[in-house]
Amino acid sequence: MSYTEELGQRAKAVESAVAAASTTQKNKALAAISAALIANTELIIAENAKDMAAAKENGISESLQDRLRLDESRIAGIAKGVDELIALNDPIGEIIEGITRPNGMRIAKTRVPLGVIGIIYESRPNVTVDAAALCLKAGNVVILKGGKEAINSNICLGRIMREAIASTGMPADAVQVVENTSRETTNELMRLNKYLDVLIPRGSGRLIQAVLNTATVPVIETGVGNCHVYVDSSADLEMAVDIADNGKTQRPSVCNAIENLLVHKDCADKFLPMIAERFKAHSVKIYGCDRTIAILGEGIEKATEQEYATEFLDYVISVKVVDDIDEAVAHIAKYGTKHSECIVTESLANAEKFQRYVDAAAVYVNASTRFTDGGEFGLGAEIGISTQKLHARGPMGLRELTTVKYLINGNGQIR
Amino acid sequence: MSYTEELGQRAKAVESAVAAASTTQKNKALAAISAALIANTELIIAENAKDMAAAKENGISESLQDRLRLDESRIAGIAKGVDELIALNDPIGEIIEGITRPNGMRIAKTRVPLGVIGIIYESRPNVTVDAAALCLKAGNVVILKGGKEAINSNICLGRIMREAIASTGMPADAVQVVENTSRETTNELMRLNKYLDVLIPRGSGRLIQAVLNTATVPVIETGVGNCHVYVDSSADLEMAVDIADNGKTQRPSVCNAIENLLVHKDCADKFLPMIAERFKAHSVKIYGCDRTIAILGEGIEKATEQEYATEFLDYVISVKVVDDIDEAVAHIAKYGTKHSECIVTESLANAEKFQRYVDAAAVYVNASTRFTDGGEFGLGAEIGISTQKLHARGPMGLRELTTVKYLINGNGQIR
Repeated sequence: MSYTEELGQRAKAVESAVAAASTTQKNKALAAISAALIANTELIIAENAKDMAAAKENGISESLQDRLRLDESRIAGIAKGVDELIALNDPIGEIIEGITRPNGMRIAKTRVPLGVIGIIYESRPNVTVDAAALCLKAGNVVILKGGKEAINSNICLGRIMREAIASTGMPADAVQVVENTSRETTNELMRLNKYLDVLIPRGSGRLIQAVLNTATVPVIETGVGNCHVYVDSSADLEMAVDIADNGKTQRPSVCNAIENLLVHKDCADKFLPMIAERFKAHSVKIYGCDRTIAILGEGIEKATEQEYATEFLDYVISVKVVDDIDEAVAHIAKYGTKHSECIVTESLANAEKFQRYVDAAAVYVNASTRFTDGGEFGLGAEIGISTQKLHARGPMGLRELTTVKYLINGNGQIR
Repeated sequence: MSYTEELGQRAKAVESAVAAASTTQKNKALAAISAALIANTELIIAENAKDMAAAKENGISESLQDRLRLDESRIAGIAKGVDELIALNDPIGEIIEGITRPNGMRIAKTRVPLGVIGIIYESRPNVTVDAAALCLKAGNVVILKGGKEAINSNICLGRIMREAIASTGMPADAVQVVENTSRETTNELMRLNKYLDVLIPRGSGRLIQAVLNTATVPVIETGVGNCHVYVDSSADLEMAVDIADNGKTQRPSVCNAIENLLVHKDCADKFLPMIAERFKAHSVKIYGCDRTIAILGEGIEKATEQEYATEFLDYVISVKVVDDIDEAVAHIAKYGTKHSECIVTESLANAEKFQRYVDAAAVYVNASTRFTDGGEFGLGAEIGISTQKLHARGPMGLRELTTVKYLINGNGQIR
């Protein structure tokens, strides 16, 4: 039996016990995980130091090293995240709706766990705990496959969580960390249909595309965001500057940051110099269409198809002056990734048109795309942001880690 | 450009117009379709006759010929099905939930169409109209790929529907019938990710497996049902006979019919002769375990793994005597297809245990599995019965042909 099959079998063996665990049992396990993380802070930092040393040796970038680093305050933050899950409503067992049929048979649509979830992610070791805790709270078993850069941290976090879970009487195999990070193992995991109910990749567009190409297990796509702000001719330009600047510069490395600015031709002369001035604070690099260059001058590089299609995740933006809202909507349909899109406008008709015709998980009127987030949307916590249409769309919380089961009770009804 | 790409482009071109159509517009189109079917009854029968002639010539089985046949009463039935959709609530535009955030930003989770849906099905031409009408009512564009046996019927039904839709001012391309039934075209359709949002195969397990193996477009699996009735030691045996008989013989060719009977050892001596007697009316062929054979005698063939895993869809059943409910649950976990499962019991504890631990779309206590059906579940109509866990599980009605979109309205909020 292969290593991944073993992981799958162990997960399957505890699936129904974890699914049947009461909210109290699951919350106890979460509390134990949180406490164990704090109690083992030194150990975690020591194991993380091995990953950090390897990262430096391999010449990994500063920003990637920063993602990898765990310190006392970050570990406390991770533990706090687990604690916060305890307070969230358990979605399992919810009776979503139900009817009594004319023949007296009662039908209840109830919420149950998905089963066994595979998570494939990159360098940030906090995902190991965040994802495991969310899956556990929703009654799922999880197999976690992180990046090889974080392997020592992940194995250590996995061991701490498993011991904590077992100490409360739940099965340790509710959480498994893949210790073999070879590409072969990852590819096997993506085809482990016999044991996995769903695969959630978290990370860069490149990772997600690789999973989509290889996986036969059903995938929930997350997090690629080529997001736009469209500044309508009727926009409050000060507001538009705030929203575009917030979308681009408040945290450029995340999926709900904007990558493109579309500006109506009637306000471009006035708006573009205003936003260019604001962008100077972060030295934002601007790619523009010919009309943008004509207004902003020679410092602007020509934007091509390539730039309009790129999720920069950096202090870089592409700008296009459009003739009207229809051109903006068409541009978004062509280049957007159906994540988060925004119009700044004072026109009710254009606000409605934009929200009706733009096809994306979140469509904003006069607010920053940066709000597309489980916490901001009131879900409490999120496992990722779905950019697909099946099963879940937008921020995925506990409920999106569930499926349904119809329970039918009769007293001998037949057809 | 390939033929399937052309279909995809035409679908995509009308997607947003169909999605934005009002309930009134969509209902007008449905009424026009229904009226046009009745008005063109003779034409449909004439085109269907070509398919029937070819079927006879090709020596296709009587039962397949029956599925293929359209007559005046069947066409009236199809039209009535379309009429009934008019009365159903339109799910599109529903505001599922919403909140106002502390910063004053309003977030509404709304229901929107999935987009472009591909349906791949087999010989029954009624599916052409049923599926098209359901997709249209939920604001989706549909591409229909039926079996080559029904090609003349399907093309004729497609043309009638397209003309009817266009006559009400909606785009004819809301419904397209694939006129080229080659395997190559079908395979291309399954990989048309650029244009298709979801693929729904309807038909035999073989068809569904073929789609799962080939498709890169997200698939909703439907309809393979290896369903069980477990007769508990505490069962009312008369009720158990009725439920088992109804599940097996009322309509054996459908997915919610039962294929297996699990009987507690303490009631097997009494129950098995009762059900065997009842099955005689339909000459049901029984495969049994050794204990079954010991009780029922030599007329029973030995059941192997093969029989326990087979969806017979015929007057055939496999029987196993089990030691207890745990063995029954384990057997279902091993051989079931997560469709519909039933326990007959008078024990509250066992009823609860069965409903908790059996992992299936519909889990019955003391009622026939034959009720797993959109109409019976109060959905009004169904596009199929999902046996997967993502997106939809159990009978899929209009709501299951939708996704969500978050609409966020603010007045300048930033993070």
